[in-house]
Amino acid sequence: MTRLDLFADVVALTRALVDIPSESGHEARLADAVEAALAALPHLTVERIGHSVVARTDLGHPERVLIAGHLDTVPAAGNLPSRLDGGLLHGLGACDMKGGVAVALRLAATVPAPAARDVTYVFYECEEVEGDRNGLGVIAAARPELLAADLAILMEPSDAGVEAGCQGVLSADITVRGERAHTARSWMGVNAAHRAAAVLQRLADHTPQRVVIDGLEYREGLNAVAVRAGVAGNVVPDECVITVNSRFAPSRSAQEAEAYVRDLFPGHDVEVTEVVTGALPGLGQEAVASLVAVLGVAPRPKLGWTDVARFAALGVPALNYGPGDPVLAHTAGEYVPVAQLHACEERLRSWLSASP
Amino acid sequence: MTRLDLFADVVALTRALVDIPSESGHEARLADAVEAALAALPHLTVERIGHSVVARTDLGHPERVLIAGHLDTVPAAGNLPSRLDGGLLHGLGACDMKGGVAVALRLAATVPAPAARDVTYVFYECEEVEGDRNGLGVIAAARPELLAADLAILMEPSDAGVEAGCQGVLSADITVRGERAHTARSWMGVNAAHRAAAVLQRLADHTPQRVVIDGLEYREGLNAVAVRAGVAGNVVPDECVITVNSRFAPSRSAQEAEAYVRDLFPGHDVEVTEVVTGALPGLGQEAVASLVAVLGVAPRPKLGWTDVARFAALGVPALNYGPGDPVLAHTAGEYVPVAQLHACEERLRSWLSASP
Repeated sequence: MTRLDLFADVVALTRALVDIPSESGHEARLADAVEAALAALPHLTVERIGHSVVARTDLGHPERVLIAGHLDTVPAAGNLPSRLDGGLLHGLGACDMKGGVAVALRLAATVPAPAARDVTYVFYECEEVEGDRNGLGVIAAARPELLAADLAILMEPSDAGVEAGCQGVLSADITVRGERAHTARSWMGVNAAHRAAAVLQRLADHTPQRVVIDGLEYREGLNAVAVRAGVAGNVVPDECVITVNSRFAPSRSAQEAEAYVRDLFPGHDVEVTEVVTGALPGLGQEAVASLVAVLGVAPRPKLGWTDVARFAALGVPALNYGPGDPVLAHTAGEYVPVAQLHACEERLRSWLSASP
Repeated sequence: MTRLDLFADVVALTRALVDIPSESGHEARLADAVEAALAALPHLTVERIGHSVVARTDLGHPERVLIAGHLDTVPAAGNLPSRLDGGLLHGLGACDMKGGVAVALRLAATVPAPAARDVTYVFYECEEVEGDRNGLGVIAAARPELLAADLAILMEPSDAGVEAGCQGVLSADITVRGERAHTARSWMGVNAAHRAAAVLQRLADHTPQRVVIDGLEYREGLNAVAVRAGVAGNVVPDECVITVNSRFAPSRSAQEAEAYVRDLFPGHDVEVTEVVTGALPGLGQEAVASLVAVLGVAPRPKLGWTDVARFAALGVPALNYGPGDPVLAHTAGEYVPVAQLHACEERLRSWLSASP
């Protein structure tokens, strides 16, 4: 088994993590290494659930913060092993999110006695695949008490800034129907693709809302992401399916998000295929406010969906804070800036070490 | 080799033809049988080109009529062997177009000395597949003199009515472009599917023209037959391709048909992928008029494209006249009414036998 040295610097640790491949579903080797390294630390209680690892301090503080990162990566794209190029560390998962995992592991090892809050570290599997395999979800189902906390920090890449909350996502298929006919006698049919013009124009004309929560602007979006029609080259199509993707503010419930889309297309066959609510930023909560103050960066709204929504669903306020540009996630050329690795580690250590 | 008895009645002959399978590309056995049966007739000169057979009378008449039918069928669909059910003869190719081929073979055998016009009979391969394999096209390229005539009668199913000329066909891809973006930040992109609304609405609003030629109304059509857009569920699509199928009156040239479509979508990327012109009905020509008079049925316009357009391109006026409902072509349940087999044979025999 590869031994991880949590007392080396964060750059060396990130490289070591990148160099242990851990595509989704194949996290065992990395989880073993993480579990062993944490188990060697006497101030932590370590548990293993599947290929996820939970490590906790238990100093009796009245508050608890949870720091989480996923161990898995998307499939390799010729971007292994890790490579340090000036101030940038390249390699599969460097940005999403082994840099953030390295920061969390360093804190777990080097802050044995956090001053004001106990800490739960969660390193989990299967974030990059279907939601029902997600390690956080597995823990929430099997051992929900392990995720209890007053605040969760998800180490997703956020360019070392605070990205608070996240928007919800809804997918729906709008089916426009017609009647088939041979194109040589097209007046005997009804062209569903022609009728779909009204739906697409409605989308083109629609102005998404901007919702301000805790001073952050969540800019919504409603887009056709796929259009499919066609039977044969000489047939008037009797069906046109438009797949719509909605990104909605975290203040909306799933029911509201669904009603919003249905109301836009009255009289059409709208089938909602997925809806997951977002997470409120919760900047007004004391735990969040104190962290934001110590980090010294102005919070931004998170527009994409992340696992902070899972914490929100558990009643735990959560924010995204991690090294790496989120736009680089899932790209073959992903990297993490060394300066951000150091910055994230130092700021979080300051916060954990500060007296209440 | 199956022996065809051309002196049996037309129903028995149609059944014999249906019971020799001849899906496109597999016409050899049927072509062999047809060639042998015709070669046994002393009044005909028979030639074989590929799996097509040409048989000619040569009585020195000043005019010549060409009677053509294709030997191939679409793939079988559990509809073999032939089955006679009351007045309907069922089976693969019964309608499209072995009934018509049987009528032509009967005429070839039983009208040894047509009164006013020499006759060229053409039984050809590969009508149901890509145009460049079409047996008529092969003969036109290799032995164009064999197709010389004053009038061509194509035995395509026309419900024993005369379907004159045919419309042209144009296919084009209209590509609407945009710019990709993550749907969580859709304002950074341009949604091509939304922009496609204008093209589809234009098609929905468009009123096809009705063009009257020789008293026949050719009703045009312009239809989206396919719409394709979609990159991934969370990506604003940067391209939407709309495939358009135009059916245009035989009075329009290919250039006019193309300009018509391009003019409807100014500023869009229109790629014409296929254009074949139609065939004028030519009802004013003496040969056509005399046939129509003898057949005693009012001509109708042919809206679908058929090989009459190939004759038109060779300068030979042509019409569709054959037993069977064209709507049944290519259906598993295709059949030909026995009464139409007899009617077509008798009317054409009367015409061929009538003094000028």
